[in-house]
Amino acid sequence: MSDRLEAFEAYRRKMNERIADVDHLGIKRFFNLDTKAYEDGALDEKTKELLGLVASMVLRCNDCIDYHIIQCVDAGWTDEELYDAFNVALVVGGSIVIPHLRHAVESLDIYRGRERS
Amino acid sequence: MSDRLEAFEAYRRKMNERIADVDHLGIKRFFNLDTKAYEDGALDEKTKELLGLVASMVLRCNDCIDYHIIQCVDAGWTDEELYDAFNVALVVGGSIVIPHLRHAVESLDIYRGRERS
Amino acid sequence: MSDRLEAFEAYRRKMNERIADVDHLGIKRFFNLDTKAYEDGALDEKTKELLGLVASMVLRCNDCIDYHIIQCVDAGWTDEELYDAFNVALVVGGSIVIPHLRHAVESLDIYRGRERS
Amino acid sequence: MSDRLEAFEAYRRKMNERIADVDHLGIKRFFNLDTKAYEDGALDEKTKELLGLVASMVLRCNDCIDYHIIQCVDAGWTDEELYDAFNVALVVGGSIVIPHLRHAVESLDIYRGRERS
Amino acid sequence: MSDRLEAFEAYRRKMNERIADVDHLGIKRFFNLDTKAYEDGALDEKTKELLGLVASMVLRCNDCIDYHIIQCVDAGWTDEELYDAFNVALVVGGSIVIPHLRHAVESLDIYRGRERS
Amino acid sequence: MSDRLEAFEAYRRKMNERIADVDHLGIKRFFNLDTKAYEDGALDEKTKELLGLVASMVLRCNDCIDYHIIQCVDAGWTDEELYDAFNVALVVGGSIVIPHLRHAVESLDIYRGRERS
Repeated sequence: MSDRLEAFEAYRRKMNERIADVDHLGIKRFFNLDTKAYEDGALDEKTKELLGLVASMVLRCNDCIDYHIIQCVDAGWTDEELYDAFNVALVVGGSIVIPHLRHAVESLDIYRGRERS
Repeated sequence: MSDRLEAFEAYRRKMNERIADVDHLGIKRFFNLDTKAYEDGALDEKTKELLGLVASMVLRCNDCIDYHIIQCVDAGWTDEELYDAFNVALVVGGSIVIPHLRHAVESLDIYRGRERS
Repeated sequence: MSDRLEAFEAYRRKMNERIADVDHLGIKRFFNLDTKAYEDGALDEKTKELLGLVASMVLRCNDCIDYHIIQCVDAGWTDEELYDAFNVALVVGGSIVIPHLRHAVESLDIYRGRERS
Repeated sequence: MSDRLEAFEAYRRKMNERIADVDHLGIKRFFNLDTKAYEDGALDEKTKELLGLVASMVLRCNDCIDYHIIQCVDAGWTDEELYDAFNVALVVGGSIVIPHLRHAVESLDIYRGRERS
Repeated sequence: MSDRLEAFEAYRRKMNERIADVDHLGIKRFFNLDTKAYEDGALDEKTKELLGLVASMVLRCNDCIDYHIIQCVDAGWTDEELYDAFNVALVVGGSIVIPHLRHAVESLDIYRGRERS
Repeated sequence: MSDRLEAFEAYRRKMNERIADVDHLGIKRFFNLDTKAYEDGALDEKTKELLGLVASMVLRCNDCIDYHIIQCVDAGWTDEELYDAFNVALVVGGSIVIPHLRHAVESLDIYRGRERS
């Protein structure tokens, strides 16, 4: 059975393929730039994914949060480190971030559960 | 002669003292929580300041950017690392972040200039 | 049968308990500060809940709207007063608030319906 | 069978009628002003709907995007022109707009599919 | 000598007259709707001005904050009540609101100073 | 004597050169993508600049507004057409856009005055 994180990943994959089909050079380049922004550079990928996660939380975008949660776990951040990052996002962005904190914690639990099974 | 970063720091200090005088327990506690959010924990202070900087950039707050630029430089981030963080903020937040990127680069230059003099 | 407001309340309760389990002192304190911000002070709780509702509407957060609708009804605000608050939020925040106005009016109807049954 | 765009349209119609019943003069006038803002004036309706679409994308409101997608298609904008507008929204608003770009492309596909059937 | 609040008020007055000269019916009606949103209705003007102030703070608009501070003081809100409203805005909107809290406290001090002289 | 629009243009030019010096490939590509997004494509440049202007107004960025006002005037939009676009931005974004409408109208007046002299 598919969890909500898998449903998001499937939808994301399907629509990204559809957008690639649209074949708009500007959009294609933007997606490329977005991918490259998180690759190792002066900062390593692991740090950049955490930056992406906190940016997604203060901008309150659940899909972006889910994407970066997965990336952050894969990059090796521990739960305690992620909670500390959630706390920075919460203090910067305020209580309006709380529904997205709930979502982030649940996504993290789902993804960790998948690792364990 | 005072630069615009010093003017900001003086204003910030003056008004934070004024706000402390207001003596509202909730506000006092919020300021305290804000300070503590960047202290060493599961994540170290250096990483958290970078998170604060990127959050400030995507939320497009120049005063917050200035504050975190100073903290990030003091914490030991190099220019190349900071430019890489600026790039993540730019890609996440889009061209609407560009005026704040200009501000951030100028603030960084001013603060580095102060170090050198 | 459970309505969407009940589903939200159950999810909110479940995830708040999960977040309490996370046991991060900063997050715990933020939740505490958030609760205290709406308690009687120089302004009474009733007024503060209305402030929270309008803030949630202009920031366009449906979960926050649902929470404050419930609190506002429990605090004794009438429908006419709430519509007047919705109108302030609509004028300040613009037509982008309209989907959240639809949500707010529906949540209010659901919650009033629950009172009547 | 109803698609998600039809479900949105039905909900929008139902709640707009409910809001009309609320009978708040300010809210009524706002809805009227909102309708009139897209009527032919110095700019024609077609151009204004495209402005509404891009504004909805950078402000990241899926319901507003769906509404303006429908209006833009009915006003005669081609897919290639709409993709070009999506690209402006993406560059201005950044990668945080991507989930809404996915939504917009899917909504456009659904609506075009309806035209064809 | 003019303070920054007087400078804002003069600029606001001058530009509002200029905008009235533009003679665009939609814009004119929006300004009218905006004025009416704060008049006595189911909620009284005093309460509505406080709603406008908190909405302005969480949306982080200094000009709007200045306008509503003046209106709130004229409507009879005490400093303690305004600080309590500032606190709600701070908790909802997070530390990104702090620069606007500084601005709000300073504006309030300037306006109270004017009353006393 | 230099007006505030000239001061902005000079600062923008200076800092864009400084940012080009930074020599970060991702940032460089983003600036390139941003430029290309407004070039003739399925939509012409003139239409895209108007989209950029409305996006800048609802996102409430004065520097971005100034840039696009200049581009829109150069692209041949009349004042009446620009006021109509301002109105769409005002209705979508609400009264929080008003300070930026004041700024936009003043910038337009300054730029038109420059044309006449």
